[in-house]
Amino acid sequence: VSSRITVAIFGVGLIGGSIGMALRQRGLAQQVVGLGRDDARLNLARKSGAITASTTQVEEAAKSADLVVICTPVKFLFEHVQMVTQHCSPTTLITDAGSTKLNLVQQVEAELPSANFVGSHPLAGSDRSGVEHASGDLFEGRTVVVTPTEASPEHSVTQLTDFWESLGAHVVRMLPAQHDRALARTSHLPHVLASALAALTREDELRLTAGGWLDTTRIAAADAELWQQILLDNKQNVAAEIGNLCQKLNEFKSALDGNDSETIKRLLAAGKQRRDAVGS
Amino acid sequence: VSSRITVAIFGVGLIGGSIGMALRQRGLAQQVVGLGRDDARLNLARKSGAITASTTQVEEAAKSADLVVICTPVKFLFEHVQMVTQHCSPTTLITDAGSTKLNLVQQVEAELPSANFVGSHPLAGSDRSGVEHASGDLFEGRTVVVTPTEASPEHSVTQLTDFWESLGAHVVRMLPAQHDRALARTSHLPHVLASALAALTREDELRLTAGGWLDTTRIAAADAELWQQILLDNKQNVAAEIGNLCQKLNEFKSALDGNDSETIKRLLAAGKQRRDAVGS
Repeated sequence: VSSRITVAIFGVGLIGGSIGMALRQRGLAQQVVGLGRDDARLNLARKSGAITASTTQVEEAAKSADLVVICTPVKFLFEHVQMVTQHCSPTTLITDAGSTKLNLVQQVEAELPSANFVGSHPLAGSDRSGVEHASGDLFEGRTVVVTPTEASPEHSVTQLTDFWESLGAHVVRMLPAQHDRALARTSHLPHVLASALAALTREDELRLTAGGWLDTTRIAAADAELWQQILLDNKQNVAAEIGNLCQKLNEFKSALDGNDSETIKRLLAAGKQRRDAVGS
Repeated sequence: VSSRITVAIFGVGLIGGSIGMALRQRGLAQQVVGLGRDDARLNLARKSGAITASTTQVEEAAKSADLVVICTPVKFLFEHVQMVTQHCSPTTLITDAGSTKLNLVQQVEAELPSANFVGSHPLAGSDRSGVEHASGDLFEGRTVVVTPTEASPEHSVTQLTDFWESLGAHVVRMLPAQHDRALARTSHLPHVLASALAALTREDELRLTAGGWLDTTRIAAADAELWQQILLDNKQNVAAEIGNLCQKLNEFKSALDGNDSETIKRLLAAGKQRRDAVGS
């Protein structure tokens, strides 16, 4: 990434704001233009050092951008790619930061064949949102999945990979469908689980929660509207994983019903082995 | 708690070690005697400041103790209460730190009617174990459940409550059966869930995990043998909660199958509301 590029960030929240801060702190961009609907939020982003300029007009942000990163909610991504495409140069690389990839990539390729778009998913979300929680280090050591297809120009994939790596991330290349299947297990199912567990806990028992419950339910605090969109956009994979999880839970239940200590220990050891492989 | 009391700690790991450190740092005990099987572990506990003396002989630890706290694995608790009872004075208060209460309390009351025993459960575990992770602050602001019954002398309950409060904890008094039902939801089910989720994640997908997965599965790293004992000791409640959770998960699944965004959002919002009520 040349230090003279201009980057437009559509949606300057946790992810968009962190991209802007990382670009500025590393001296990677000449200009970082924040695009959004809300002037107050854009001013906050500017004050916190995430962007150098801001606008509420897509045209103004898109026309001079070498790279546009769309960090808006999943539900709006296609519409926003479309809006950017109408106003940017044909060479402008467009990417996103959405948690699901297949539907978006398919729709862009079908309806916007001239768009220079390659999908991205930085695995760096949290239960928090907003530029007030953004950080220039957010992508340091994190994984970003990029999801080109046969239709993606190789130089765009290279440019996008270089971009995320310049922010400190590891880039993993996957097909959109493969991404959505894997993330159903590693991200979307954990959200469903955390939420179900939190909802199941009775209000008068909350004082009896400790570290285990707090960790296990933490992401249930994430924004319900944003996560509804993600889960629904990947509904077949998530529904299948809910089924797989209940099957695994029923193995525990059968072992408990049968007083089968060896099986319970074996099941727990299998979970521990996977968890220990990752670290804290 | 008078500063002249002598406390014996049976099993000086994370919990036992933290009790010893808290007692010593707060100047609450004249002597803290560590009791265990392994001299090397006891020496480590002594070096880390958790205990002032150590022994592998129950008699030696029990005979002069005003209070004995049994912090050994759930499976051994009854046996260890029995051993301590054989050697301590009739006025010595005996408690434990086990994660389940009903079976232990019932067995002690049935088989050791003369024991001055009241059950405890400090909600301060973690995925780690061993005195090397112990801390004198572990109980600061944490909840400790004490589970007296009609058979428990009120002065013993007061003494035990004062003890845990002197370590910085909030004490909640519950019946043993009530404790086990509630903890099935707030602690034991989260362990099963974390383990099931971790085990379900494919090895080649571990690089695609991020904060949500890491939080949700953290306690899957806990000791499999210890947790097998806990789950089995509370098997009916845990099995029932696994059933309740699968029912809740199937509400998500039906909503996904039916493309029902309103229901998904409502379910997520319910989980968020409970989680937000607790804090980080």
